[in-house]
Amino acid sequence: MITETIVILETQIDDMTAQSIAYTMEQLLQNGALDVYTQAIGMKKSRNGTLITVICPCDRQSICEQILFRETTTLGIRYRLQERKILHRQIHEVTTEYGKARVKIAWRNGFCTIQPEYEDCARLARSRNLSLIQVQEAVKLAGENFFNDLSTTNFDSKSRTNPPLDFL
Amino acid sequence: MITETIVILETQIDDMTAQSIAYTMEQLLQNGALDVYTQAIGMKKSRNGTLITVICPCDRQSICEQILFRETTTLGIRYRLQERKILHRQIHEVTTEYGKARVKIAWRNGFCTIQPEYEDCARLARSRNLSLIQVQEAVKLAGENFFNDLSTTNFDSKSRTNPPLDFL
Amino acid sequence: MITETIVILETQIDDMTAQSIAYTMEQLLQNGALDVYTQAIGMKKSRNGTLITVICPCDRQSICEQILFRETTTLGIRYRLQERKILHRQIHEVTTEYGKARVKIAWRNGFCTIQPEYEDCARLARSRNLSLIQVQEAVKLAGENFFNDLSTTNFDSKSRTNPPLDFL
Amino acid sequence: MITETIVILETQIDDMTAQSIAYTMEQLLQNGALDVYTQAIGMKKSRNGTLITVICPCDRQSICEQILFRETTTLGIRYRLQERKILHRQIHEVTTEYGKARVKIAWRNGFCTIQPEYEDCARLARSRNLSLIQVQEAVKLAGENFFNDLSTTNFDSKSRTNPPLDFL
Amino acid sequence: MITETIVILETQIDDMTAQSIAYTMEQLLQNGALDVYTQAIGMKKSRNGTLITVICPCDRQSICEQILFRETTTLGIRYRLQERKILHRQIHEVTTEYGKARVKIAWRNGFCTIQPEYEDCARLARSRNLSLIQVQEAVKLAGENFFNDLSTTNFDSKSRTNPPLDFL
Amino acid sequence: MITETIVILETQIDDMTAQSIAYTMEQLLQNGALDVYTQAIGMKKSRNGTLITVICPCDRQSICEQILFRETTTLGIRYRLQERKILHRQIHEVTTEYGKARVKIAWRNGFCTIQPEYEDCARLARSRNLSLIQVQEAVKLAGENFFNDLSTTNFDSKSRTNPPLDFL
Repeated sequence: MITETIVILETQIDDMTAQSIAYTMEQLLQNGALDVYTQAIGMKKSRNGTLITVICPCDRQSICEQILFRETTTLGIRYRLQERKILHRQIHEVTTEYGKARVKIAWRNGFCTIQPEYEDCARLARSRNLSLIQVQEAVKLAGENFFNDLSTTNFDSKSRTNPPLDFL
Repeated sequence: MITETIVILETQIDDMTAQSIAYTMEQLLQNGALDVYTQAIGMKKSRNGTLITVICPCDRQSICEQILFRETTTLGIRYRLQERKILHRQIHEVTTEYGKARVKIAWRNGFCTIQPEYEDCARLARSRNLSLIQVQEAVKLAGENFFNDLSTTNFDSKSRTNPPLDFL
Repeated sequence: MITETIVILETQIDDMTAQSIAYTMEQLLQNGALDVYTQAIGMKKSRNGTLITVICPCDRQSICEQILFRETTTLGIRYRLQERKILHRQIHEVTTEYGKARVKIAWRNGFCTIQPEYEDCARLARSRNLSLIQVQEAVKLAGENFFNDLSTTNFDSKSRTNPPLDFL
Repeated sequence: MITETIVILETQIDDMTAQSIAYTMEQLLQNGALDVYTQAIGMKKSRNGTLITVICPCDRQSICEQILFRETTTLGIRYRLQERKILHRQIHEVTTEYGKARVKIAWRNGFCTIQPEYEDCARLARSRNLSLIQVQEAVKLAGENFFNDLSTTNFDSKSRTNPPLDFL
Repeated sequence: MITETIVILETQIDDMTAQSIAYTMEQLLQNGALDVYTQAIGMKKSRNGTLITVICPCDRQSICEQILFRETTTLGIRYRLQERKILHRQIHEVTTEYGKARVKIAWRNGFCTIQPEYEDCARLARSRNLSLIQVQEAVKLAGENFFNDLSTTNFDSKSRTNPPLDFL
Repeated sequence: MITETIVILETQIDDMTAQSIAYTMEQLLQNGALDVYTQAIGMKKSRNGTLITVICPCDRQSICEQILFRETTTLGIRYRLQERKILHRQIHEVTTEYGKARVKIAWRNGFCTIQPEYEDCARLARSRNLSLIQVQEAVKLAGENFFNDLSTTNFDSKSRTNPPLDFL
């Protein structure tokens, strides 16, 4: 587990359209924001506005603020530093009957999870006209098999209680 | 209990501001809409838009549609007829130590509820710099006393199981 | 697939607490409602109220209306009939290393899904202090194996393209 | 104004991920749905689920239902017919200092609105690193000029109180 | 009034189900979290995800983080210390015609509020098939009477402007 | 751009009505809060409560806390200091064919925006029975003309890349 410092930017909006807010999100993500999300908020005078929250590395604070001031109608941005803890994770590619896809392996206090990468599964489902659920299950299974092989070659644990040597 | 037919108008919006939507609500209510409410909705392309729902009497459908087409950016309005059941209710004015206020008495399958009118309580609380809670409690108590007097003069029931004669 | 007629009841609320609305949901579900859900709505005068929607069989409309009038402050309930299509589904119990749990098998236009019953998985996870995810995966796997055995004894399909004979 | 009949499909979900619901929206829109939106709902057992609403032409009801049953975990879909009124609108391309973009002109009870097409403006803003607001304003202005020219050649009205001859 | 330091944990989720998030809430509350709440958020790629916020004492931070990493799919948790001010409050049991129930008395800058304990009222309403509103009103009234007696024995104030001696 | 320190107050509520929360917002804004907003939150026991956030200057923290404790049922308020950056802005009155209205001019990293004041536009639209959109567009245009005149008298820039001399 790693601890790092990030920046949180926040601004509430009541005079922009949903289209323009979506465009702002896109611009923020393309310029280094780690995540951006919106929340419906109830404001004065019966206005149901939007709170925009931007999570970014410290060295992207300036550009993200510039984008907020350029693309939104806001006159003020709140910001604060915050700590976050992040898990070690690995990305691996696996092969299924439907094609190749990546899985994300994350170590969580004594066991690990294997999550199929959404974009890869969606691409396979679209191109083969399959249910996304079917593809995700196949990728998950391939990920499980991959992990089991990885575990047995790197360390002698069936119970997944310790990470493989190359995991950190 | 009365059953009546009303009209429901709906339109989803992704290119208006919260300010303009609030203005549209105001215009609809001033032109005969029974109720108007908005809901945050997730739309295509990461847009968090707004669903506007208007409930109006059948003879106000036309004017409410005109307002929606005039004040919003929508190009289409969905509408349907719907039945609703409404309770008998009476409005009475009561006197408290803080001033006069109205209460709404509604008969509900064998018992009745007494609800202080919000606007009256808010007015008293504002003008006397009191907690709204305190005022509402005083008005509620005065309403209970009023109802008990009303009941005993009109019918002989302590248990409120039948409405007074003049209730329907 | 079966088509059936159900009733939708709706009422918007701005003068109840979240506690009381949750209690109303509980009462409706215990008295035969098929589903109940609430939505945050923006109302006049900056009120962020709640829309309650009840889905019930036609023969439960009356009791659900009574509960709404008894447990909420509403003075009016909207209702309409609606059609819905429902899938054939089967419930089966399977055995895992963590204990027994039920799975729901549903046939969906040419393939089927196997969903672990949440309550069973949560019970096993709580009692053994396991991650819910781990338990759900084990139950899902057991369900897959159960289904494959079921399929091969009832019909000759590996691809799950037709339901087993006893499915409808 | 035209009145047409459409189909509304609804289903509430508590056991899908946001990723999978977004994929389902994408598939529905690619297969003829007129609009799809999601709403956060409060369900039993403290679950904050999602209500999916699909608006589609009558001849797309079947394919949209198939997608819902294939891509979601739902076991039941509610559907109803509904009327909607839609405005006459025209799409025109205009030229600005930043490039070409389309505008949508809609006739609304005695006046008309000119709305820049979002996708065109976003494309121009992205490619020239401009604020979306700046581009939208330029396109809007070009649309106004276009409309004024259109009006004077087709009909003699400065007040925009009647649509041009080729508008319907 | 007391001021204390608490910990706020936050993580946004787009690949979990509502069922699993509700289970996570349950686990957090059983392991010492003071409060947990979820918010619907609009995320990239049209995903309507969930922000989970955990409020816990400083000495429960570690276990709450472990639960979040174990029960959710998150790869990162944000945390910060925050101050909060809390009111003095007392819990007392009162007796009504429907049975016993607790009330919470809180001193608020010169006046006090008496709130019936929801769980007690709900239990009485369920067991006697009464409206929750009726039970809450009876418990509230009993609480008022209890408080008035408490006040007159402990201090000579009808106006509730000072707390009784044993209140702090 | 100015940086200033503000206070954020937060409290989550599950036992108040939407009416009373709206009243609390009103009282906070009248007593110096810079902004107040509410958010729908999912809480334990299926309660869909409300998170109230108050943004206020440091010297209004005390009065805003008093109002929260007086008007809400909360027993605890969280607070923190936060920095925010605010843009320079000017308010000017302009004249349109529909009457006078103010515009807000804000300088944003190399270009400026002109926003019609909502309240002024709404007043004109109401009194003349016009579409709000029409009024806003007229006020915006008048604001553009005003700004262009302002710019050319104060500095020689058509491209708006530098603020006029009296802007800061």
